[in-house]
Amino acid sequence: MLGNFTYHNPTKVIFGKDAMDALVGELEAYGPTVQLVYGGGSIKRNGVYDQVREALARAGKTVVEDGGVMPNPTVEKLNEGVAIARENKVDLILAVGGGSCIDYAKGVAVSVNLPAGRDPWQTYWVDFEEPACEVVPVGAVLTMVGTGSEMNCGSVITNHETKMKVGHVFASPDVFPKFAVLNPEFTFTLPRYQMVAGIFDIMNHITEQYFSGTDDNTSDYLAEGLMRSLVVASRAAVRNPEDYEARSNIMWCATWALNTLIAQGKATDWEVHMLGQAVGAHTDATHGMTLSAVALPYYRLIMPYGALKFARFATAVWDVDAAGKSAEQVAAEGLDRMEAWMREIGCVMSISELGVTEDMLEALADSTLIMRGGYHALTRDEVIEVFRASL
Amino acid sequence: MLGNFTYHNPTKVIFGKDAMDALVGELEAYGPTVQLVYGGGSIKRNGVYDQVREALARAGKTVVEDGGVMPNPTVEKLNEGVAIARENKVDLILAVGGGSCIDYAKGVAVSVNLPAGRDPWQTYWVDFEEPACEVVPVGAVLTMVGTGSEMNCGSVITNHETKMKVGHVFASPDVFPKFAVLNPEFTFTLPRYQMVAGIFDIMNHITEQYFSGTDDNTSDYLAEGLMRSLVVASRAAVRNPEDYEARSNIMWCATWALNTLIAQGKATDWEVHMLGQAVGAHTDATHGMTLSAVALPYYRLIMPYGALKFARFATAVWDVDAAGKSAEQVAAEGLDRMEAWMREIGCVMSISELGVTEDMLEALADSTLIMRGGYHALTRDEVIEVFRASL
Repeated sequence: MLGNFTYHNPTKVIFGKDAMDALVGELEAYGPTVQLVYGGGSIKRNGVYDQVREALARAGKTVVEDGGVMPNPTVEKLNEGVAIARENKVDLILAVGGGSCIDYAKGVAVSVNLPAGRDPWQTYWVDFEEPACEVVPVGAVLTMVGTGSEMNCGSVITNHETKMKVGHVFASPDVFPKFAVLNPEFTFTLPRYQMVAGIFDIMNHITEQYFSGTDDNTSDYLAEGLMRSLVVASRAAVRNPEDYEARSNIMWCATWALNTLIAQGKATDWEVHMLGQAVGAHTDATHGMTLSAVALPYYRLIMPYGALKFARFATAVWDVDAAGKSAEQVAAEGLDRMEAWMREIGCVMSISELGVTEDMLEALADSTLIMRGGYHALTRDEVIEVFRASL
Repeated sequence: MLGNFTYHNPTKVIFGKDAMDALVGELEAYGPTVQLVYGGGSIKRNGVYDQVREALARAGKTVVEDGGVMPNPTVEKLNEGVAIARENKVDLILAVGGGSCIDYAKGVAVSVNLPAGRDPWQTYWVDFEEPACEVVPVGAVLTMVGTGSEMNCGSVITNHETKMKVGHVFASPDVFPKFAVLNPEFTFTLPRYQMVAGIFDIMNHITEQYFSGTDDNTSDYLAEGLMRSLVVASRAAVRNPEDYEARSNIMWCATWALNTLIAQGKATDWEVHMLGQAVGAHTDATHGMTLSAVALPYYRLIMPYGALKFARFATAVWDVDAAGKSAEQVAAEGLDRMEAWMREIGCVMSISELGVTEDMLEALADSTLIMRGGYHALTRDEVIEVFRASL
């Protein structure tokens, strides 16, 4: 049921092949100094960095470089970014990259104006406070899809010292990027493995929200629409990574998969993310592939607890013919079709392939958080069972 | 294909049974004087007016009354509202009602600060200018669903002198309501005829956008999700108008049906609205029922020009089994199922029922604008044919 909620998503998304043309105009709304956040060298190789620098120059901005953001941005890097922002009194933080860069930019943005002595990590990723200080505006130029960070208020930061990777979904609308430039062509040069990992990450963002609750609400119908679109577009993108239509639909699905719309009225599960993140913590494997490796063993285990919803998933997303079959049969067929799709596009289907060995299972279980929003809260034995089924 | 577009929808939606609790807090962000816009007496009878006045009092606001907004707000009323706003230097325009009240509030909001001598109607609904002056903030408390005005930037104003009813979809994000309070319970007391008219209006907002283009994009998948949700919820609401789950899903579908999301990448048609508005101009019939009376004759006429899309509609929304059938057969079955649903919920299926007689058909055709975004632009003979088929 759609209970009480607030939906407020103020990000201005500029989408399409010509989206970069709008960047100069967007920059003009902010003060003179821009902190330019990016990751490794890929944006320098594919020309996006030059395009952004040119727009910044045309807008007359002073640019403070802040590159080297790693795939899982760390507390140390965050503190470094905050120091850069403070020292240069930046007016805008412009993230050019994927979810890690944008998450990091938001993390810096909420921390710059913390009172002296307040630690960002403690304040936002341990105590989960909302920003009481002014938040520096964030803009984004997206070059990799999956996390939805371009149009949401989440920021995931990793603390290696305490071995914690924590996502804070802020409530304040100030944390959303003010604008996000989405040019699907910027994703063309991504290696296939990363593209497929991103696609499964998107699918899993949707299923994590979808597989919870038994009531009937619009969010689930929208989720089904997104999943159908993603399946069609992903097949086309795998055949031809430069299929603009396919890449643009994947990009747009990713944004709407995790910008709060389809979570309204939903308990949400997120257990696949917990299982996958445990794998990631012990192997440093690509996020999306840690999810694909554990998703089916998990869903097959919990299916009997939510058979009617899994059967709905089978018919609504995978066109399984339900005539004359039990809900469990229909549900199982749906998961089989999902498996066939995953294999077709090239998802990693086993944690062995990511470097997990049997002797690591206990440690993986120790690292797995148990969620309670889905159809069944796993026991520790079941966590092990899921991992073992994925070996 | 998802081409170039900007998506920017800054309205804060507060949804649910307890949504009104947030109104005082929202009001606090604005200056002391509030223009309170509403229609007839229904909000006084159902208690919503008292709740709003109480919130305004608790927020310490000075209230300027502006009631009596008619179903199709007129230029005369608009000018009256602008005079009220100017005289009282209002800081916020709070619309309590349905789409007409909110459309009217937006119309006043963009006109208050026009330079002396500039006519609102001419500026915005004839010349379609964007507001160059400051726009007074608008807030909304929704009591009737259908138009989506609570979360979009459109404003329809009627000029009886020139016999024009014109909608201006502004581009400026300033025209969106700043906040919208959506309590599904506020719609419980609406008469069944109005509820059903609203439901078909929502369905038609979706189909007007959906039945255009032949490419494959996420917008159509989202549209299919909204339609499936609406069909299920409408059946439940007709059985029991106080089914909160059903009414909340209908309300949320209405908002997303026309807040620009599912229009991205779409040419959009809107011919059913043109045909229906012609009927409305000559009969003063309820908007949604003018649409339901003409929709099927129109869709059956154009179906051969867009058979593949109509076939997709049949399978994706109405679960028609396509095995062994031609696209036209599948499409026709889909439209038959839509007709069955329309009859089941109580839509008006004939313009005779709305007061149209055969001798009016030429005049109706004169009043019908021909759109070119759908699968087939009607000839004048075809316009007559559609109306005749609905007699």
